[in-house]
Amino acid sequence: MKEIEILPNPKIGAAAGFSSVGLAVGLKRSGKPDLGMIVSDRPCTTAGMFTTNKVAAAPVVYDRAALRKKSTGIRAVVVNSGHANAATGEAGLRISKLSAVAAEKSLGLPAGTVLVCSTGIIGDLPPETHLLRGIDMAARRLSNKDTDFPKAILTTDKSEKIAGVRLRLPDGSNITMVGVAKGCGMIAPNMATMLAFIVTDAAVSPAFLKASLKTAVMETFNRVSVDRDTSTNDTALILAGGAAGNRPIRKGPAGKLFLEGLRRVCGHLAWKMVEDGEGATKVIEVIVSGARTVSSAVAAARTVAESLLVRTAMHGEDPNVGRVLGALGRSGLREIDPDKIDVYFNGVRAVKSGLLDRSSSQIALRNALRPKTVRIGIDLHAGRAEGRFLSCDLSAEYVRINAEYRT
Amino acid sequence: MKEIEILPNPKIGAAAGFSSVGLAVGLKRSGKPDLGMIVSDRPCTTAGMFTTNKVAAAPVVYDRAALRKKSTGIRAVVVNSGHANAATGEAGLRISKLSAVAAEKSLGLPAGTVLVCSTGIIGDLPPETHLLRGIDMAARRLSNKDTDFPKAILTTDKSEKIAGVRLRLPDGSNITMVGVAKGCGMIAPNMATMLAFIVTDAAVSPAFLKASLKTAVMETFNRVSVDRDTSTNDTALILAGGAAGNRPIRKGPAGKLFLEGLRRVCGHLAWKMVEDGEGATKVIEVIVSGARTVSSAVAAARTVAESLLVRTAMHGEDPNVGRVLGALGRSGLREIDPDKIDVYFNGVRAVKSGLLDRSSSQIALRNALRPKTVRIGIDLHAGRAEGRFLSCDLSAEYVRINAEYRT
Repeated sequence: MKEIEILPNPKIGAAAGFSSVGLAVGLKRSGKPDLGMIVSDRPCTTAGMFTTNKVAAAPVVYDRAALRKKSTGIRAVVVNSGHANAATGEAGLRISKLSAVAAEKSLGLPAGTVLVCSTGIIGDLPPETHLLRGIDMAARRLSNKDTDFPKAILTTDKSEKIAGVRLRLPDGSNITMVGVAKGCGMIAPNMATMLAFIVTDAAVSPAFLKASLKTAVMETFNRVSVDRDTSTNDTALILAGGAAGNRPIRKGPAGKLFLEGLRRVCGHLAWKMVEDGEGATKVIEVIVSGARTVSSAVAAARTVAESLLVRTAMHGEDPNVGRVLGALGRSGLREIDPDKIDVYFNGVRAVKSGLLDRSSSQIALRNALRPKTVRIGIDLHAGRAEGRFLSCDLSAEYVRINAEYRT
Repeated sequence: MKEIEILPNPKIGAAAGFSSVGLAVGLKRSGKPDLGMIVSDRPCTTAGMFTTNKVAAAPVVYDRAALRKKSTGIRAVVVNSGHANAATGEAGLRISKLSAVAAEKSLGLPAGTVLVCSTGIIGDLPPETHLLRGIDMAARRLSNKDTDFPKAILTTDKSEKIAGVRLRLPDGSNITMVGVAKGCGMIAPNMATMLAFIVTDAAVSPAFLKASLKTAVMETFNRVSVDRDTSTNDTALILAGGAAGNRPIRKGPAGKLFLEGLRRVCGHLAWKMVEDGEGATKVIEVIVSGARTVSSAVAAARTVAESLLVRTAMHGEDPNVGRVLGALGRSGLREIDPDKIDVYFNGVRAVKSGLLDRSSSQIALRNALRPKTVRIGIDLHAGRAEGRFLSCDLSAEYVRINAEYRT
């Protein structure tokens, strides 16, 4: 067995000790699944990363406080979709607390062991009666074979997002890690309207778990953007139960492997998010090389990936590489020398030393933009660092979805 | 007569000593006007502001160098539309220089007295033969009654942009100031693909002219955004000829009045740009009050005005005020207290102290978003400063225009 194995058909229950559920309890007007729950049969070491938005949703406030108090002992997460419970003041905080308490009661757990998440329209409170009754129903339908949780947390997403890996640790034990996410609009770095839940049966030290989550989030979820609108509800949680019986991971080769597995899971979910970006028909992967530092490479890649003019050109399969140069020029990087830049569309050179490369035909460039994934490769020839950023094309459908989301 | 009079039907020639021309010389495939020229019958004190984009177009490089050498003595500006002459290297610089020299020759002017501007597709050189022949033709058709220059500088703009004022100075003299602009895409602060030309028959000291232009640009053109893509070609030029015979303006009441007139002209042109924003159906004017400083008020207003989710909601006339709160929350302002924010849509309160204002009906809020101008008023209740930022709604038409610009 290899050290890292990608699970072909992951379920939350593949991580030993975890069960889940997803069901429709009447929160969404559409009647679609709108309540999800993940439960561990033992106390979990837990880490979380939350939105940087100052208008933070009530569940974000609740979870931050809970994890500040203790990062061990968490047993479950309850998620409702349809109502963000953000900009809802005291009433919102009350509902988050009531949800957690209701779940603790229904599951027979001690106080302070359940976290809560919400996603949906800002300013709206989830309807209390439906929510609390739904939590009680959910608690009775948990299963380690469940495949409905990933559906229950979606809003405008078109598809479920789940990924999993199995790792063979140096001590001989096997651990499993499964991640589920939602998010396709209001997606921007520093967390987006994205929720991500990662469960693992590994035993992991609290400090190492926290550091690993931070690193993985920075390199994956924080390097994708659909519309630059960082949401009020962003949350990534990782729960490590320890049912695998491994020696607790702290650092060293086991830590390195664990982090790599987490990167793969988060990276896969991040890719799925831009692929499912509202109205998206293409994933845009911008890779900047030849920069002085990784952070400047990422900044330049981000400016290109987020440019509306680049995103619309990619939508039209128009090799208008001038827009890529224009975006690079305004990215604020000191090391950019316009006369040194090379640009490639899926490997076909469009710009050589700052000038349009006339040796590549317009037909060749157009054909390069046909595939569903467009890799824009940029070499600044100013250093050795490389950075990557993911986005998606901007379509008329994006506008339609967002002009009519509530109507 | 009032101190400031808005000219109802301004022409460039309304400023004494100036003539202009606009014509089609075969640069654009569409056959539309693509070459413009403004000429002064006497040497002008001149100031310019240029793009901050590192990939600066050849004409920007040329003009910057010319104005660094001397800010007096300028006699004319030549503008071509269709080809940006950016990312064109040495060949591009050569064409800019050739254009200036051709105009100097055709107009019988000394060397170094003509400035040049280009707008259009990045990476493309304007066709040399057509351009130089066109310049010679243009020089023979100048008129102080011309109304074609504003048409000749357009690209995807739907309408011409011109504004003018007459000022009565304290010394009893009357001066006239007329501005012409283009720009509707790639519009973002720190200059956009916008070109603006302001001519005045006032005599103005070089230092005061430079300072006034900077102030006016910062408060007008740099506070509008269509797509955040700062262009490679942005240029604002002001030429002051002095035919009005006033005492040269340096400061004091005359200076104050001059600056106010310039603000009005630039402000009007900036408004026209967002009104004509690619695909726009509405102007969005965000006014943030109760901030600690003007710059933080402007920063918050900008974040809201540029949010794709706010812009699509306004397009759909959807009073989804949660998106305004979400944008404010990620604006990075320290003084934001979510529980203190009030938000108004065209005067109808949508949020009171951070919570949806249920006393305003959804119907009232929807109706408030019907007009062609939507003013989003935001009070942070954290200070006394106010700031304003202009944008436009984001429509499917924007995507269509930009996915198909070259095809």
